[in-house]
Amino acid sequence: MTNVSRENAPLSYAIIGSGALGGLYGGMLANVGSDVHFLINSGIDQIRRDGWTVESVLGDFHISGDLLNLHTDASSIPPCDVTIVAIKTTQNHLLPQLLSGSTSKDGVVLCLQNGLHSELDSVAVVGPDRVLGGCCFLCSNKIGPGHIRHIDYGRIVMGEFTDASLPPAGITARLQRITDDLRAAGIDANATGDLWMARWRKLMWNIPFNGLSVALNASTKELIDNESSFAIAESIMREVYDVAAAVGRKLPADAIELTLDHTRHMVPYDSSMRLDFLAGREMELRAIFEAPLTAAKRAGVVMSRVEMLHRQLAFLQSRADH
Amino acid sequence: MTNVSRENAPLSYAIIGSGALGGLYGGMLANVGSDVHFLINSGIDQIRRDGWTVESVLGDFHISGDLLNLHTDASSIPPCDVTIVAIKTTQNHLLPQLLSGSTSKDGVVLCLQNGLHSELDSVAVVGPDRVLGGCCFLCSNKIGPGHIRHIDYGRIVMGEFTDASLPPAGITARLQRITDDLRAAGIDANATGDLWMARWRKLMWNIPFNGLSVALNASTKELIDNESSFAIAESIMREVYDVAAAVGRKLPADAIELTLDHTRHMVPYDSSMRLDFLAGREMELRAIFEAPLTAAKRAGVVMSRVEMLHRQLAFLQSRADH
Repeated sequence: MTNVSRENAPLSYAIIGSGALGGLYGGMLANVGSDVHFLINSGIDQIRRDGWTVESVLGDFHISGDLLNLHTDASSIPPCDVTIVAIKTTQNHLLPQLLSGSTSKDGVVLCLQNGLHSELDSVAVVGPDRVLGGCCFLCSNKIGPGHIRHIDYGRIVMGEFTDASLPPAGITARLQRITDDLRAAGIDANATGDLWMARWRKLMWNIPFNGLSVALNASTKELIDNESSFAIAESIMREVYDVAAAVGRKLPADAIELTLDHTRHMVPYDSSMRLDFLAGREMELRAIFEAPLTAAKRAGVVMSRVEMLHRQLAFLQSRADH
Repeated sequence: MTNVSRENAPLSYAIIGSGALGGLYGGMLANVGSDVHFLINSGIDQIRRDGWTVESVLGDFHISGDLLNLHTDASSIPPCDVTIVAIKTTQNHLLPQLLSGSTSKDGVVLCLQNGLHSELDSVAVVGPDRVLGGCCFLCSNKIGPGHIRHIDYGRIVMGEFTDASLPPAGITARLQRITDDLRAAGIDANATGDLWMARWRKLMWNIPFNGLSVALNASTKELIDNESSFAIAESIMREVYDVAAAVGRKLPADAIELTLDHTRHMVPYDSSMRLDFLAGREMELRAIFEAPLTAAKRAGVVMSRVEMLHRQLAFLQSRADH
């Protein structure tokens, strides 16, 4: 990779966004002794005092505060091999500042964000050749500063980010090396040669279940248990499936059924969008709804249900903003 | 009409359902001295004592209790020329009992209910040749027993009910006579030769604005003022318009724009469906959503947004029922 390739030297990491996702994966890396720099938004004194606590279905662990590299200012983070972007996409306008330290020499960005085209905001800062992306299938919550509760799943499917019009990038050496390094920390990281395929597959879940959990004020369990909301979710998944196919990412024929099955067996969980909405935070509408709707429109496909759900969320967001 | 045709004799009326709608129109008829029998569900003693009070944009009036024909049991109502059905369609399973007195000899039923095919439940009781239907464009609320507040509009478009597969029935003598009689009471009643046309036009409002007012927990004013909900409403109206055309009821080209304009200038108003939902009553999903969706399906047209909105409402209704 641009220089993650000091071959056998251990990889260093910056974690931009130490919440439910960055806090878990960054914690797991630090827990096996990796060189990890956390960007901390709030509660740094508490973390210095109490350390980093992860309650996880994979096993609990704790790292004492004096072993942590904590930063409140991104520009003070030294250059790292891998900068993991784990903030909400709604904060992406901050990326020029947030990436300033850790990517200042070279290294790559691994964008573990929701939605479609979310990597483009990182590309705008570090250029197209230094960005990878990953989809996380994870049920995790931040309980407090440096305190993460990981309750289910945890898989990352990650790949090189390339323009959707180009052929799939395949599995590059740097992608494989970072994947291996994450796996060595116990993270269920998986390399894919076609990141877009993974993105669309994730959207097939995010669009219905994030969206309906807010529009109907319901948990994923309620949505899957009720025949009416189940039917909406399924028909929305079909729309996303069809658009993915139209843009050249035909998912396996059983993708919808498998995703519904996974959701049926998921522990009761509030989607990230519902948590955002209930907490009065901006929802990730641009990444999860608007970018896919734009992609569909370019492909000449109408996603009428997705469009309507997006408009409902935009209404609710707009009312919450007033 | 089957026998409303005692030519110049004054028409007698039974009002089945003395709420926001039946209470207003029945009150207006009684106020000009018509022979009106009210079926009263609750509060009859209070009405006997305090009389009938209508606060209306058309002018307030009051009828003292001793001038009212009040019934708590439908079977005690004498045969009437016109039985106005003004209960919610969710109560239509009661019609065999509710129509037992007033239609016991002959006379017609004028079904002033929401939705599509709502007349069929009356047809099942009195037969196909004795039913007329009407669409009401009315903002009115029942404040208490015998107390109606009429805040905007009030038009009725009424016609003979015939099977949708038959040619429009035209304006029959009995339809004209009842219309004239209602107009003489100050009611803005209008005869139409094609009731289905009026039904579809009304549905073009009811489906989006009743539905979204519940799904988004919003007043019609909020829905029309916000660009996202406005866009949903407009796209749903387009779906209804297209289905109406597919079943042979092509509405005027400007029907959507005119309906939106009317709604924009409507006083802030809670839709009847929202009032039902907030009060824990069953919503009129069968008449307003399911019957039109069935008609669309038969015509081979998909109303994907209407279907999704219906499923959202079914989810909310089901949750409210538990």
